[in-house]
Amino acid sequence: MPKRCGLHTIRLPSGPAILGYAAVGGKKEGEGPLGGQFDAIFRDARLGQETWEQAESALQREALSRAVTKAGLETEELQMLFAGDLLNQNIASTYGLREMGVPLLGQFGACSTMGQTMAVAAVFVDSGAAAPCGAVTSSHFCTAERQFRFPLEYGGQRTPTSQWTATASGAVVVGQGKGVRIRRVCVGRVQDLGVTDMNNMGAAMAPAAADTIGRFLRDTGTVPGDYDLIATGDLGAVGSALCRQMLSRQGITLGDNYTDCGLLLFDRQRQDVHAGGSGCGCSASVLCAHILPQMEQGQLKRVLFCPTGALMSPTSSQQGESIPGICHVVELVME
Amino acid sequence: MPKRCGLHTIRLPSGPAILGYAAVGGKKEGEGPLGGQFDAIFRDARLGQETWEQAESALQREALSRAVTKAGLETEELQMLFAGDLLNQNIASTYGLREMGVPLLGQFGACSTMGQTMAVAAVFVDSGAAAPCGAVTSSHFCTAERQFRFPLEYGGQRTPTSQWTATASGAVVVGQGKGVRIRRVCVGRVQDLGVTDMNNMGAAMAPAAADTIGRFLRDTGTVPGDYDLIATGDLGAVGSALCRQMLSRQGITLGDNYTDCGLLLFDRQRQDVHAGGSGCGCSASVLCAHILPQMEQGQLKRVLFCPTGALMSPTSSQQGESIPGICHVVELVME
Repeated sequence: MPKRCGLHTIRLPSGPAILGYAAVGGKKEGEGPLGGQFDAIFRDARLGQETWEQAESALQREALSRAVTKAGLETEELQMLFAGDLLNQNIASTYGLREMGVPLLGQFGACSTMGQTMAVAAVFVDSGAAAPCGAVTSSHFCTAERQFRFPLEYGGQRTPTSQWTATASGAVVVGQGKGVRIRRVCVGRVQDLGVTDMNNMGAAMAPAAADTIGRFLRDTGTVPGDYDLIATGDLGAVGSALCRQMLSRQGITLGDNYTDCGLLLFDRQRQDVHAGGSGCGCSASVLCAHILPQMEQGQLKRVLFCPTGALMSPTSSQQGESIPGICHVVELVME
Repeated sequence: MPKRCGLHTIRLPSGPAILGYAAVGGKKEGEGPLGGQFDAIFRDARLGQETWEQAESALQREALSRAVTKAGLETEELQMLFAGDLLNQNIASTYGLREMGVPLLGQFGACSTMGQTMAVAAVFVDSGAAAPCGAVTSSHFCTAERQFRFPLEYGGQRTPTSQWTATASGAVVVGQGKGVRIRRVCVGRVQDLGVTDMNNMGAAMAPAAADTIGRFLRDTGTVPGDYDLIATGDLGAVGSALCRQMLSRQGITLGDNYTDCGLLLFDRQRQDVHAGGSGCGCSASVLCAHILPQMEQGQLKRVLFCPTGALMSPTSSQQGESIPGICHVVELVME
């Protein structure tokens, strides 16, 4: 049964386990440093579908189906799905999962969604409300570009601070059993320091990461050195440097164990992604392709997974609004 | 601690209570049959804001602040907020609640969102993960029309099956204490029978309502006659008639205790709303303005609140996709 820990952190005494997990990606993700670690790479950006949106839905289906299989389960054994994405009205999730026949609670936290789905799934599993649960999210470069920026055909120049939306999906099955455990979670508060540049979302999200990581460490009485890895979501080069600075002002020093999923997914020098990767699928696929396997093999024992999200829409940006950020922290342990 | 009940229903033994609730609406809602029951009516569709989107955010802030005050609490005492709306990237919620400093989990279930936020909040409260929690949602006729249909200035003709998006917000504070209790919840599965007409969303959502209500009744061994009121979300005239038919094919007969929030909010003859009201704010405000007060006064003792959502986006509809529906059932009791 979940317990409150400090001000806002939730402790999950039963230790909900990640029974299965999977990551799938597109061609560019396959060519990146983690390419060989994905469960599947699709070289066709459409995955044989008619539209990019359908392709993104297919990514979610692929990731979730593989995670369920790796958990030794059938889809219909899932009691609940927590899923979300960047598309208007969460259509990648809704259309992607509509035929599964499993109760669905759509989650929206922009690129922080993987942390959100895992946190809520962990509470449902730990409390006995529903288990096992699926948690899945996705992004697709082509659906995101045309929705948030320009038609691809326009070939717009990208600024140095911009990030590259991952074509990827990550999925986990959370339940009672063996595996990496979710021990504590800390849900984010919206932070907005007034950044308005849609091409510098790392800077917009950094305050949220510093806020939630700081709260989590204070709530739990831990320090960064207690963790083998602290990985923010998709702050990229600009945002992760800012996050370090902001935490240091709270008296918290991040060491070499700190990295960002947006810096891991692509080779920034070779792959022309500017400040790094982004999108819900970025942190989700880095978690499932790269972090969880290392935890299962015992190379990492305690990890803070801290995906970050920028909560603006094209409408709010056109109206001159600043970009609010959010970050959720999920503590993962392998015993 | 939540318990599984039947196949998919979740029982909440501690009986999380609705400690406070509030409904706010626009001019047309104020002129409807429930006008006098709202906590506040704003005759200015902009609520003094610069944009309709900001006005919708203000509706959420108003509803939630009033619910918190009626619960005898301060906003900062809330441990978690569950909020969502119809706007792309949930901006009504994000921007509306960003200054509250409370952890936020954005929920997306289209017009079913009030049921979803209440169900998840009830699990968090019952399990001890976070209490008290706020659950809030909104819609605004002007933001919805321009996002989903046409610019208002275009003055498009509306079909007889179309519904009128409510300018309204409803909010509840769920916690341990006195009040109407959330006893059981049943989360919806996506249902899609192939309806593609964006002007007939009642028909698109009816199968989801019949599915979740049917599952809830079977899981709990209850019949419609056990409830003083069964209120679907915003099926309107077309969808609620279909819902009756579909449940009757499952051997379930809805009696005079069945109604739909979309039929209650407006006077269909007098207010030119065609098949009825719709939008996240429709069922949320009918619940908070009309149903919960009757429960507190003892006029209604057992209620099934069953908001329904149509999960399409303009993109999916333009691509020829059908409209998936979803419905969540929340059982409310006053003892």
